[in-house]
Amino acid sequence: MARVGIYGATGYTGFELIKILARHPGVEIAFATARSAAGQRLSDIFPTMIDTPLVAVEAADLRAADLIFTCLPHGAPELIPLAQAALEAGKKVIDFSDIFRLSDPDDFARRRGKPHPAPELLSAAVYGLPELHREQIREARLVANTGCYPLTAILPLWPLEQAGLVADRTVIVDSKSGVSGAGRSLSLKTHFGETHETFSAYSVGRTHRHLGEMEQETGLHIIFSPHLLPVYRGILSTIYVTLRPGTTVEQARAAYAVYDGEPFVKLMPDGRLPELRHVQNTMYLAIGLQQVEEGRYIIVATVDNLLKGASGQAVQSMNLMLGMEETAGLL
Amino acid sequence: MARVGIYGATGYTGFELIKILARHPGVEIAFATARSAAGQRLSDIFPTMIDTPLVAVEAADLRAADLIFTCLPHGAPELIPLAQAALEAGKKVIDFSDIFRLSDPDDFARRRGKPHPAPELLSAAVYGLPELHREQIREARLVANTGCYPLTAILPLWPLEQAGLVADRTVIVDSKSGVSGAGRSLSLKTHFGETHETFSAYSVGRTHRHLGEMEQETGLHIIFSPHLLPVYRGILSTIYVTLRPGTTVEQARAAYAVYDGEPFVKLMPDGRLPELRHVQNTMYLAIGLQQVEEGRYIIVATVDNLLKGASGQAVQSMNLMLGMEETAGLL
Amino acid sequence: MARVGIYGATGYTGFELIKILARHPGVEIAFATARSAAGQRLSDIFPTMIDTPLVAVEAADLRAADLIFTCLPHGAPELIPLAQAALEAGKKVIDFSDIFRLSDPDDFARRRGKPHPAPELLSAAVYGLPELHREQIREARLVANTGCYPLTAILPLWPLEQAGLVADRTVIVDSKSGVSGAGRSLSLKTHFGETHETFSAYSVGRTHRHLGEMEQETGLHIIFSPHLLPVYRGILSTIYVTLRPGTTVEQARAAYAVYDGEPFVKLMPDGRLPELRHVQNTMYLAIGLQQVEEGRYIIVATVDNLLKGASGQAVQSMNLMLGMEETAGLL
Amino acid sequence: MARVGIYGATGYTGFELIKILARHPGVEIAFATARSAAGQRLSDIFPTMIDTPLVAVEAADLRAADLIFTCLPHGAPELIPLAQAALEAGKKVIDFSDIFRLSDPDDFARRRGKPHPAPELLSAAVYGLPELHREQIREARLVANTGCYPLTAILPLWPLEQAGLVADRTVIVDSKSGVSGAGRSLSLKTHFGETHETFSAYSVGRTHRHLGEMEQETGLHIIFSPHLLPVYRGILSTIYVTLRPGTTVEQARAAYAVYDGEPFVKLMPDGRLPELRHVQNTMYLAIGLQQVEEGRYIIVATVDNLLKGASGQAVQSMNLMLGMEETAGLL
Repeated sequence: MARVGIYGATGYTGFELIKILARHPGVEIAFATARSAAGQRLSDIFPTMIDTPLVAVEAADLRAADLIFTCLPHGAPELIPLAQAALEAGKKVIDFSDIFRLSDPDDFARRRGKPHPAPELLSAAVYGLPELHREQIREARLVANTGCYPLTAILPLWPLEQAGLVADRTVIVDSKSGVSGAGRSLSLKTHFGETHETFSAYSVGRTHRHLGEMEQETGLHIIFSPHLLPVYRGILSTIYVTLRPGTTVEQARAAYAVYDGEPFVKLMPDGRLPELRHVQNTMYLAIGLQQVEEGRYIIVATVDNLLKGASGQAVQSMNLMLGMEETAGLL
Repeated sequence: MARVGIYGATGYTGFELIKILARHPGVEIAFATARSAAGQRLSDIFPTMIDTPLVAVEAADLRAADLIFTCLPHGAPELIPLAQAALEAGKKVIDFSDIFRLSDPDDFARRRGKPHPAPELLSAAVYGLPELHREQIREARLVANTGCYPLTAILPLWPLEQAGLVADRTVIVDSKSGVSGAGRSLSLKTHFGETHETFSAYSVGRTHRHLGEMEQETGLHIIFSPHLLPVYRGILSTIYVTLRPGTTVEQARAAYAVYDGEPFVKLMPDGRLPELRHVQNTMYLAIGLQQVEEGRYIIVATVDNLLKGASGQAVQSMNLMLGMEETAGLL
Repeated sequence: MARVGIYGATGYTGFELIKILARHPGVEIAFATARSAAGQRLSDIFPTMIDTPLVAVEAADLRAADLIFTCLPHGAPELIPLAQAALEAGKKVIDFSDIFRLSDPDDFARRRGKPHPAPELLSAAVYGLPELHREQIREARLVANTGCYPLTAILPLWPLEQAGLVADRTVIVDSKSGVSGAGRSLSLKTHFGETHETFSAYSVGRTHRHLGEMEQETGLHIIFSPHLLPVYRGILSTIYVTLRPGTTVEQARAAYAVYDGEPFVKLMPDGRLPELRHVQNTMYLAIGLQQVEEGRYIIVATVDNLLKGASGQAVQSMNLMLGMEETAGLL
Repeated sequence: MARVGIYGATGYTGFELIKILARHPGVEIAFATARSAAGQRLSDIFPTMIDTPLVAVEAADLRAADLIFTCLPHGAPELIPLAQAALEAGKKVIDFSDIFRLSDPDDFARRRGKPHPAPELLSAAVYGLPELHREQIREARLVANTGCYPLTAILPLWPLEQAGLVADRTVIVDSKSGVSGAGRSLSLKTHFGETHETFSAYSVGRTHRHLGEMEQETGLHIIFSPHLLPVYRGILSTIYVTLRPGTTVEQARAAYAVYDGEPFVKLMPDGRLPELRHVQNTMYLAIGLQQVEEGRYIIVATVDNLLKGASGQAVQSMNLMLGMEETAGLL
């Protein structure tokens, strides 16, 4: 039994992570931290969850864990010191934030307008997408878990780009996400009365912080428009891509043969597009492809942002890092 | 043209109030206050609303208004001084809070566990339910706008009690409310991820602060269980009442003749129960009645908590207080 | 008082139409037809609606009306005979279907794969978009009410095209619609369990039947992807358009000066995008514009599909056709 | 490996059943039937489901199965012949309908107004509630799977009644259910536009067909009011019960010790009421208890109507009937 620690157990990703780990045959929970809920038990917060104590970050005993997950709120100041301490203590780390996802410190500085706070960690980190970086993840000590939106652009576009089929380097990704992607911290944007029964776009164009990892992994120039759906979980992205003149549907579909054998990528049958409900509460990323006219294609990709898009993805990486069956706890 | 001032324009009730007033033929807005949004215009916050400036409470010129609405957050410390100042300046006041709804200071003290902070205002205040207190509202200088839940108990039960039909003094009121009833202030309870696609009971039994006005107006002993629906607006209450043995449906229905001519009370046809959608975005309170067995009746009552249950109700009272057509701006 | 007849009163558009007409100062309802509900009254179906009798189509007395609205289900065989009979009797007609929206019979035949069933009516019909065809609507005897989706593409794109700013003739329109757009007829696609808490794309690319009117009115080549939102009302379209190199935001915004004085078109302040809730239950079509990079712009447009997108739009045309104030009953 | 057959695989309960069985370590699917979808595979209908062929009822080979589940639409004429044929062939049967739930043919006749169509099967059937009838289920050849609503009344009330604590034989059960309880057959009642963002009561009092099994299992007289929630899954029931004068909370809670060791019944901590989200997608039935005043108690019970309330419950019974671990496939 491997032992894992979770920093940030009461956010939505921490919570989903613990639900998976509670059923995982090969790990046990060494500790789980919380801020305001420290001192309570997880089952006090959610009665049907396992009865794990919640401790303050300072009270977590790093030595008790072989691997830690950092699921802290965006921009938490304790993240980098925690990651450094864990790595120095010989522990493996899977981080849920976007701080270690870009491999090039210059790219980071250019996109964020300031230098990276820990460039040596950035260089050591592996982008946690098994379909593209499986062998590196196996050897990694620090894995940057993927963003939820990027997954729905990278996995559909990378095979086409690899196959040399993409004609226009600019690709439009119009994404729609459930509200859980915005986390459990309070804000007017996620207040029921402002979110329910409505729909909105935000950070459109080239401003969202997930843009960097999409472009890093695909090598394409991306126009990205996220929208907020009045549902709890799931992302659907509609992608507008121009392929080489004459590319047939068969040729385009053939590019996805790189995913043969992948346990969690599903290419839809020809003529069928995936819906959110097809993937909610599953580990699948589903891809549907449709030709519009000569060269123009529309791709629809869906994922459960909390599972394959976050906590399930992290467990898939954990399984690789700990030498376990890649799908353990995930089927 | 009468001139009205609104204290608290950016909460859900203030907002609905302004939507009604903007179309009202007989009033114009003298001022509208906000806290964090002071200095902006209402259309900055909600682009399709009227373009009214929002001022800080201190910057509102009370002299510019004939009547003021106080739609402040629950427990706002400025409420009582504001109401006093307005009354002293000869203005009429309609208050949305529950501080002036009980007529007896002793009853207030017993229920809240502390004396009323301004008993002289309490004595002056009229409970703002036109169906029961129309003539007093016409003459009132201070009206306590009704709570949203109580309306769905008082209007269905009062006629039966008046007719001497209620046999068991204890009545069960099982209510289900949309989330807008909890206001626009942030809380985990109204965070999308904790409210959407779920349902819960809270403050059940004899603990909710609306219980007092229900019992004051009906004279009955009430067991009250509110629940939170994952919808934005509307309340449906299911009422379990025991009438005198032998009471026929016709006799029970006849008691509601007291509402003949009421513009906003709708007794459903026999055999039909009202649904939330029947009253959402309308001023109607709808009542359906069904006999279960000898003496036992179920009443279902529905209302839009923001219109007849709050802001529309306040305008109905305002129309009476200003000597206007009672339904002006409300049809 | 003008008298109007409604064919198809119990569908979602017929229903919204009657809600508007019931408050309209200048018209009264001559008759309202229904299929299975014929013989009932409208208030039997929806208790808080006006108490209008519902008659079978055959029982409606055309002579009693000055103008008729045809809000029949898609493909209803009685539509064309009804429209012909009404026109021959000297009545004006506003049709909600898509059968009279393309002005060129050849275009119709090419897009639908079969000739138009009544080309003489097609030639007589005016496309019911007051912002583009106000004077023709005033004189029209037959108005083809606009589709709900097309409105969100035509009104944002037409000014840019008129101003000569559109560089790439191919424009991407990614639209998201509430479920009421699919009507009240039963189908698995609109069954609660298959629609709620999910999201899907359908008829993507160049296959949706609204494509023709978008292209006719804008003169552009459009890639159109509709999606189904789990909300009742409202459409939000995200439009990707390439303007001439060097076009500034000011130049682009200036193109919308053509809508100065339009009562129902709202250009958002710079830097602000409209949300669904801004327009739900209103007559506004709201447009927000954002530059992404040199030449590339994203436009977000929102509308209430049942009001400005259907029944309110029809009343706006009716007001013009009957010589009334254009906004009567709509504010 | 036991082999099971499913009659009615494409309804909501059949679908959830197959999701559970696909992960169950001890069974494999012998056949799955469908009506209009016969000839397709289950993954054609729902792409991320297992790839099981769907056959017509007539094409299902009963001999291939050890146990069959009948998940047919309410009132399906093929049910009783199918059950008889299976039992005659020595197969075990778990039926999801309400036809075998009342043990007394006279009670059935009185409540339904007509005699039972197969009284010999009724006598053989065991009510499929392991917490009350575990040993009988082990031996049963025909199990009548419980209704979803009744579970939320029987499990909370039975211990109190067993302990002799119930003072008033009439108990009020006010229940609120997600829409999946109404099944996948199309009806206006479950059409998105009529169900979403609304709330309604139906079959209130003593008219709902689940009343019989509630009264049979508890021995109490029940007033039952079901309501339809705009959520997909889950039931919350609020129960008003009068216990013997002087009954303390401790005494009432002690009655639930009968569930000690039950894997799927959860008594909430004192002072806490269960919410729908606590049990959705789990096998738990959760019970919270609150004293209102002398003798009066409110109980809130929640369950996932598709899991412990239907398909998971059926698998729990199957595990008992097949001599497997009772919780296999359900944790």
